[in-house]
Amino acid sequence: MTENHHTDVSVLGLGAMGGALAGALVKAGLRTTVWNRSAGKADQLVAQGATEAASAAEAVRASRLLITCLFDHDSVHEVLDPLVDDLAGRTLINVTTTKPEQARQLAAWAAEAGISYLDGGIMAVPSMIGQPGAAILYSGSEEVFREHAALLDLWGTSTYYGEDAGLASLYDFALLSSMYVMFAGFMHGAAMLAPAGVPAGRFAKMAAPWLTAMTGELARYAEVIDGGDYTVPGQQSLEFSNLGLFIETSTEQGVSAEPIAMVQRLIQRQVDAGHGAEGFARIIESIKHPAA
Amino acid sequence: MTENHHTDVSVLGLGAMGGALAGALVKAGLRTTVWNRSAGKADQLVAQGATEAASAAEAVRASRLLITCLFDHDSVHEVLDPLVDDLAGRTLINVTTTKPEQARQLAAWAAEAGISYLDGGIMAVPSMIGQPGAAILYSGSEEVFREHAALLDLWGTSTYYGEDAGLASLYDFALLSSMYVMFAGFMHGAAMLAPAGVPAGRFAKMAAPWLTAMTGELARYAEVIDGGDYTVPGQQSLEFSNLGLFIETSTEQGVSAEPIAMVQRLIQRQVDAGHGAEGFARIIESIKHPAA
Ligand SMILES: NC(=O)c1ccc[n+]([C@@H]2O[C@H](COP(=O)([O-])OP(=O)(O)OC[C@H]3O[C@@H](n4cnc5c(N)ncnc54)[C@H](OP(=O)(O)O)[C@@H]3O)[C@@H](O)[C@H]2O)c1
Ligand SMILES: NC(=O)c1ccc[n+]([C@@H]2O[C@H](COP(=O)([O-])OP(=O)(O)OC[C@H]3O[C@@H](n4cnc5c(N)ncnc54)[C@H](OP(=O)(O)O)[C@@H]3O)[C@@H](O)[C@H]2O)c1
Repeated sequence: MTENHHTDVSVLGLGAMGGALAGALVKAGLRTTVWNRSAGKADQLVAQGATEAASAAEAVRASRLLITCLFDHDSVHEVLDPLVDDLAGRTLINVTTTKPEQARQLAAWAAEAGISYLDGGIMAVPSMIGQPGAAILYSGSEEVFREHAALLDLWGTSTYYGEDAGLASLYDFALLSSMYVMFAGFMHGAAMLAPAGVPAGRFAKMAAPWLTAMTGELARYAEVIDGGDYTVPGQQSLEFSNLGLFIETSTEQGVSAEPIAMVQRLIQRQVDAGHGAEGFARIIESIKHPAA
Repeated sequence: MTENHHTDVSVLGLGAMGGALAGALVKAGLRTTVWNRSAGKADQLVAQGATEAASAAEAVRASRLLITCLFDHDSVHEVLDPLVDDLAGRTLINVTTTKPEQARQLAAWAAEAGISYLDGGIMAVPSMIGQPGAAILYSGSEEVFREHAALLDLWGTSTYYGEDAGLASLYDFALLSSMYVMFAGFMHGAAMLAPAGVPAGRFAKMAAPWLTAMTGELARYAEVIDGGDYTVPGQQSLEFSNLGLFIETSTEQGVSAEPIAMVQRLIQRQVDAGHGAEGFARIIESIKHPAA
């Protein structure tokens, strides 16, 4: 067991993502130990220079720095809980997708066990790993983030969000949520146009620059939200933003109005509460204070 | 009454938008007649060189080319129906916001009355009129669009979508719908982060470039949709796109999950129908075929 070289690293979990992360480390010449629950997934990495550990325990003991990229929060505990004595004094960077609360729970568990803990959220698919376009969000121990910055940069663009271990996951989920909702909005527009014989590709060519231009409004909305005054002049009012015609048109086109009806409900709750003359940004209050 | 100069034009409706449209014509030196239901709204335009008509009938008789920018579809009929005899042989460009079906109805009504009809959808606020950033969508008579191209270009960037008069409104609504849904997705992300003390402005700085980058996916989704085969390799599957963790996180953050739950429902209906292994683009089928 070598523990004396500071670039020694063990990667536990060699699925699509873990394999890509380990591959980037091996490619950079780091002495990398790898482990996967089921056999066969380490073969290619071993051929490239990695060392395969026969057990998770062996992988943990092989390096001071451990990377976990497993299926979910429970699988991390399943693999690491039995090894808690071996883990003491080591550093764990967990890039398994977990909820913010789960990341906080793991950070507390790690602190208890004497493990330095950094949580990561990967905003990339495996094929992007190793390129600057792969954004990886971190939170938890700033010391760990700084010490291993060079290694983390082998995977993509790393950003640190704070000592609260849940932050990386929270930013990750907030960005991914907004992306999925945007995709649904695009699909709704494409579905509205389909009965008129308009191909989705034609709409995509218009929607991509249009939505890009409209992201320019986000900072303006944020300014109103952070300012806390939805009555500042120059805003489009909630009343003006009545989406009734869009809902009717969806129905007349024979398609579901669900995406836009969701927005209309957020608007309507504010209008019903007497805020119709205030700015559109106020729909965030419908989200911050869920309907009973 | 002068009818012999081809740039004579009458604008009916001088609200925020109609006033801006008429102003651009006057500024360009066109002989412009203006009319508004209630008094006072023409004063500034008259000072700039417009002629005020005492009645809608007078405004109609003043020009071969008529622009209507009224409140809604019903108000267009209210103003024009009594003047149908005067309207025969003239050209009507109606930029009042209407549903596609209403635009088609107006086009049929105009054809019946011997009026050349072009429908417009304005994707701009009044302050943008006269700049290339003001996109105005047209459909209906291509002849009218071509003949008056120079005038229409005074307002912004004009695009013609086809003889079906409903198309401009349909594109307009599809683009605006996708924008409102994207805004709601941004608000959801900002609301998730708020309890962790993250200002909306901080999230906007990340979300704007992120969503812009993600618009790059729209053309890819469109290709799958137009190809009609959701099983082509290399796609993120519907099963993989399980948004359960996002919904749980919203709830754990104390905010409403409505925007992302809407997307999850679209996904779930396809998974329930046995398509879980197929690509994410398939959520459009949940919109094209509304739930019973
Ligand atoms: N793929 C992506 O695009 C992507 C993007 C961002 C984040 N992520 C995150 O990265 C993590 C890994 O994703 P992936 O794509 O690599 O998934 P994957 O290909 O399905 O691999 C899952 C890995 O977890 C292991 N595993 C699951 N349950 C386990 C358990 N109870 N004990 C030990 N090992 C267990 C699997 O081992 P076996 O081989 O033995 O099953 C495998 O190594 C996930 O949290 C995922 O959300 C993935
Ligand atoms: N403002 C925008 O940002 C914007 C953007 C895109 C599209 N549009 C569309 O442009 C159209 C006009 O909008 P706007 O912003 O100018 O609205 P507005 O400021 O409220 O003006 C409405 C206009 O319609 C007239 N009107 C309403 N009902 C009438 C009736 N029954 N008979 C005669 N005139 C009637 C009003 O006359 P009175 O002065 O007598 O009330 C006024 O001239 C709408 O369809 C709107 O959707 C506006």
